[in-house]
Amino acid sequence: MRTGIIAFVAFALLIFTVKGSAQEERAATDTTNHYLMPVPQSVRFQPGRLIIDSSFKVAVKGHSDARLKSAIERAVRRLEGRTGLEFARGFVDDSNAATLVVQCQSAGKAIPSLDEDESYSIEVSPKQTLLNAPTVVGAIRGLETFLQLIEGDREGYFIPLASIQDRPRFRWRGLLIDACRHWEPVEVIKRNLDGMAAVKLNVLHWHLTEDQGFRVESRRFPKLHQMGSDGLYYTQDDVREVIAYARERGIRVIPEFDMPGHATSWFVGYPEIASAPGPYQIERHFGIFDPTMDPTREETYKLLDGFLGEMAQLFPDEYMHIGGDENNGKQWNQNPKIQEFMKSKGLKDNHALQAYFNQRVSAILKKHEKKMVGWDEILHPDLPNDIVIQSWRGQASLAEGAKKGYNGILSFGYYLDYIFPAAYHYAVDPIAADSNLTAQETARILGGEACMWGEYVNPETIDSRIWPRLAAIAERLWSPRSVTDADDMYRRLAIVSVRLEELGLKHESHVDRMLRRIAQTHQVAPLRMLVDIVEPVKVYNRGQAHPTTQMTPLTRLVDAARPDARAARPFSKMVDAMLSDAPRFEIHRDSLRRTLAEWRDARLALDVIIARSPILNEAAQLPKDLSDIATAGLEAISYLSSGIAPPQNWRDAKLALLDEAAKPKAEVQIVIVPALRQLIIAAAELPALKTMPPTDWAKRVRELAAPKRAEVN
Amino acid sequence: MRTGIIAFVAFALLIFTVKGSAQEERAATDTTNHYLMPVPQSVRFQPGRLIIDSSFKVAVKGHSDARLKSAIERAVRRLEGRTGLEFARGFVDDSNAATLVVQCQSAGKAIPSLDEDESYSIEVSPKQTLLNAPTVVGAIRGLETFLQLIEGDREGYFIPLASIQDRPRFRWRGLLIDACRHWEPVEVIKRNLDGMAAVKLNVLHWHLTEDQGFRVESRRFPKLHQMGSDGLYYTQDDVREVIAYARERGIRVIPEFDMPGHATSWFVGYPEIASAPGPYQIERHFGIFDPTMDPTREETYKLLDGFLGEMAQLFPDEYMHIGGDENNGKQWNQNPKIQEFMKSKGLKDNHALQAYFNQRVSAILKKHEKKMVGWDEILHPDLPNDIVIQSWRGQASLAEGAKKGYNGILSFGYYLDYIFPAAYHYAVDPIAADSNLTAQETARILGGEACMWGEYVNPETIDSRIWPRLAAIAERLWSPRSVTDADDMYRRLAIVSVRLEELGLKHESHVDRMLRRIAQTHQVAPLRMLVDIVEPVKVYNRGQAHPTTQMTPLTRLVDAARPDARAARPFSKMVDAMLSDAPRFEIHRDSLRRTLAEWRDARLALDVIIARSPILNEAAQLPKDLSDIATAGLEAISYLSSGIAPPQNWRDAKLALLDEAAKPKAEVQIVIVPALRQLIIAAAELPALKTMPPTDWAKRVRELAAPKRAEVN
Repeated sequence: MRTGIIAFVAFALLIFTVKGSAQEERAATDTTNHYLMPVPQSVRFQPGRLIIDSSFKVAVKGHSDARLKSAIERAVRRLEGRTGLEFARGFVDDSNAATLVVQCQSAGKAIPSLDEDESYSIEVSPKQTLLNAPTVVGAIRGLETFLQLIEGDREGYFIPLASIQDRPRFRWRGLLIDACRHWEPVEVIKRNLDGMAAVKLNVLHWHLTEDQGFRVESRRFPKLHQMGSDGLYYTQDDVREVIAYARERGIRVIPEFDMPGHATSWFVGYPEIASAPGPYQIERHFGIFDPTMDPTREETYKLLDGFLGEMAQLFPDEYMHIGGDENNGKQWNQNPKIQEFMKSKGLKDNHALQAYFNQRVSAILKKHEKKMVGWDEILHPDLPNDIVIQSWRGQASLAEGAKKGYNGILSFGYYLDYIFPAAYHYAVDPIAADSNLTAQETARILGGEACMWGEYVNPETIDSRIWPRLAAIAERLWSPRSVTDADDMYRRLAIVSVRLEELGLKHESHVDRMLRRIAQTHQVAPLRMLVDIVEPVKVYNRGQAHPTTQMTPLTRLVDAARPDARAARPFSKMVDAMLSDAPRFEIHRDSLRRTLAEWRDARLALDVIIARSPILNEAAQLPKDLSDIATAGLEAISYLSSGIAPPQNWRDAKLALLDEAAKPKAEVQIVIVPALRQLIIAAAELPALKTMPPTDWAKRVRELAAPKRAEVN
Repeated sequence: MRTGIIAFVAFALLIFTVKGSAQEERAATDTTNHYLMPVPQSVRFQPGRLIIDSSFKVAVKGHSDARLKSAIERAVRRLEGRTGLEFARGFVDDSNAATLVVQCQSAGKAIPSLDEDESYSIEVSPKQTLLNAPTVVGAIRGLETFLQLIEGDREGYFIPLASIQDRPRFRWRGLLIDACRHWEPVEVIKRNLDGMAAVKLNVLHWHLTEDQGFRVESRRFPKLHQMGSDGLYYTQDDVREVIAYARERGIRVIPEFDMPGHATSWFVGYPEIASAPGPYQIERHFGIFDPTMDPTREETYKLLDGFLGEMAQLFPDEYMHIGGDENNGKQWNQNPKIQEFMKSKGLKDNHALQAYFNQRVSAILKKHEKKMVGWDEILHPDLPNDIVIQSWRGQASLAEGAKKGYNGILSFGYYLDYIFPAAYHYAVDPIAADSNLTAQETARILGGEACMWGEYVNPETIDSRIWPRLAAIAERLWSPRSVTDADDMYRRLAIVSVRLEELGLKHESHVDRMLRRIAQTHQVAPLRMLVDIVEPVKVYNRGQAHPTTQMTPLTRLVDAARPDARAARPFSKMVDAMLSDAPRFEIHRDSLRRTLAEWRDARLALDVIIARSPILNEAAQLPKDLSDIATAGLEAISYLSSGIAPPQNWRDAKLALLDEAAKPKAEVQIVIVPALRQLIIAAAELPALKTMPPTDWAKRVRELAAPKRAEVN
């Protein structure tokens, strides 16, 4: 029955707008048609429903405390906002009279911990929902699932009868936020903590020091934040506020103090701990820089001991991250005293010297009762076995660590700043499919962390780079390994993304807001059409055409564009379906023609907007490219549907247009090119295809249209 | 030349989307085609331009201080964001090398004051812009004008050569924010202060106490905020932060402590100062309530003396607002001791008793060196002449006060919570056109304040109720009286509104964000089409169908709808133009047909969305209404363009449909009805019209279609 409604919706929306129709149809045929994300360990739906109306009430059974109650209060307020219903405040004593019963066994860990039990179960009967959890954090996880179960139809709001048992696959599920390359105020951190909790993430990895900024107040060494931050730093009160906010949501907060490299901002106030003489200034550019701590001087360890000791008091988590990445060694190589020190200690290279440094830091952390986390580079047999290796290198590096007895978390494949589509991250598993680790070794792979490096994000844009893709990574880290259907992930992600907005996140409103500013009008429909088929350039390609510093405005077209261009995937799905309908090519044909005609005809309106918006001058070629390739697509559809092959030189001319259109301009890429390439090739190959059974045509076209290796990214 | 670009824009946007076309065309033919708001006292443009590119630099001449410098820094960052250009930080010493020279004579008042000189002048030459101001606040006003002058075309960004002399018409230009009915956190206040500064407003009237909440920390009487606020109050640090933030923008902050009525929340902690025995609870409903301070007990004045004394230290402005409105007198009437007191003092009625109370409070304020502001009700000959009367009653009440020697400000006509269109507020002048006040009396009318009463706004919706309409009121209070062209105001308001968004205001993103939550999908195009032709019910009609309390979610369709429905005004303009093109009716005919056909056909998609979104059940009739009246409009156009009159009963049947559609549903009203009524009547009256010269037809139709008096609101 629920499927029926959705199919009707899909049909009507299809009439109204072509875009997105492929996704909606997917929904109509999906038998596990829920919007849970991450997918629980086990979920069974039964026919029937629990009605949600204004009589909704909550009871708490078993353990109860302030954290649990305020988590329930927040959930109920969100339910009110979504349904428009006003519920009674507070809790009822008689659990039989409650619509939602939260039954909790214990408070769990006083400080959120790697060893927290986050499991829960939900039983929905026609009378009530029973949420059962061994700990408050488990209940908090279950409340998010409860909110995701809400549906509506002509009868009103309801929850489908269901039985859910759930627990995370990995214990460490994090998001790194780099607040250094660009400053991110407390409110940005808080709303992203809310988003994290909504998708059951449990670690905020707070990257607090960098070449470009020292972002935490040190009372012992005040020149660190005073001289290293442009006044943009978290006070210790801010830090406590964030930690408390995270704890309320069952999220650990692990600070990272990157050393010995990535440390220029430390040296502005304390040049004496650097490996070359000062003075130093806050770094404004992005990249890997020379300034590195001097691992041979006792002053360095004295400062680190004092500073890390102060931070150990401030941050209650048992782990502390010391970075350790990307030390280029230049200052060490050029400093005769350091060279002498290495010789005297028998340290044969910079890796050995850094291992020495790490051992010293390890001892300091041990003294302050913290365990060390660091990037791949810190892996060295001299370090104790309780450290955690965070791997940007990949599963192999992680597995190697696990074999040597080290715990690890994966970040390779989860770099949000690479601007890859959600499906890419979704396919990355912390444990390789062909892993040969023992069960004990496998258990050392604790989970993973998405990384939001800060070169190209600021408070205005960061949400759009984290969300909704982070929800896909969260599912990878929480749900069973077998949950891998990208189409179904995208189906659910579209809804999850909208729901995340109720927490104050700005990713959904991002594109239009940026486009209004760019075009200085609210009439941005033509520009939105363009943005919906482009994506920012990937990996480290940004900043090459436009050298960027910490000061550069992030308000250009590339900043408005989304990582998953909204129209690209549905378009590609429709092309696939049409080509699979050989030799008639009727499925989606009319929709595709309408869409392509809109793209072709958008040029005039776009040219005008660009003409009065100099910030878009760099994008002046895009409307012509789009118009040209859309026209080519329309021609291809005409050939295909008439069964008549195009003339001799048509294919090469059109593919040349596509190649030109595929080149990045204004640091964005038109991402409908691969689907159009399939259309062009299908039309051009009609004579050859006709010699094959029609059922093989689509596959053959995909093979012919597949990019050569060098073309990928 | 600037006009040429805009005309081209208008044309292209017209092709792309019908909506808004009337406004854009207005722009094309306007000779004073700028986007300044408020319009300056004097502005002259010359041919030529000052180029704005990455070489942009600022110099400060004459007086300089931290407030001026940070105002310039903020302006330059906004300019960067709009243009995408990266400018050098800081200031240049050589003013000849600067693109913008800010020349300031003095710091002005240490505390923003009614007597601040806010004047400035701007001279734009091809080489640089010179901003001259006697005070820092004047320079801050001028910087906003400077930002509004920025334009762009194929050559890049530029400022047209111009000569501007500017100063405000009124000295007191305020916004009241009621943070009591619903709590508004500091960030809401701050972003609205930014918006106020952008349109040159200079008073934040902070309504801090009410029946529904006591929102400021009192250290002397902590039970006030502890028991009267649900924990939702401004700490004294918060208050200082807001005052400092406002001062940076040249804005005064005047707190209102409403008394003796509207005071339930005071009595939760201090029932002894009420006129009836407690206990009291925070009021959750809206309206006028009985609890009133006891003006006969010395304890009352002791508390007020202590509290107002504490607040006088906290708020540096020379004025303090004591409310004084809407005391229903019931508690006084029912309290024998109070009756006895009145008899003994010869106070003949409650008004006299309240005057006694006000005199006592006036003495307390005087002791703490504050001048009193209060609503009309406080006007009484026993009060000193330095008080300010804030009039919700109207210009006559204000003029009456002025004749008696009292200063006054107007709020009648500026109630944003009435949900009237911007044009309504724009037409209200603090001084009546037929005023017979002397120059001296006229000078006592200091200005006005828009009121954002908080019954139906919360942090999520408040921006959408304040903006962009407040900009129109700001213009009324700043610009010359003669600036009254509503069409031109709307032309500029559309751009100003988008630019306000760069300050973090959420009014432009409001509708789509709310609709996404309502429909639980990002595909809200059909719903947005509906919202663009409806407005929330006006004045106090809200909450009658759905009784509302402080706890009721504000997430329904009515909360998503805008005060100025976006499609209504352009539609009405197009209908006007078409009817004025009698007897051919060709102007806009095709656009109108397309628009009406879209409205007619939206029904299926809307029905589906409503079916799965129970929060929209209350709106289930709207798509049918819209479809019916759009069909009627299409029929009317067919009759008009063919010159053939409709059959006998057509007119009555269609007008009945319109009457039905005009009735509020889901607390919104379809506001395209009047324009459609004109179409229907024009078609029905074709035989009669044909007896008149075609140039008279449109006027005749307007007369016939004008609502009878009783129908207005």
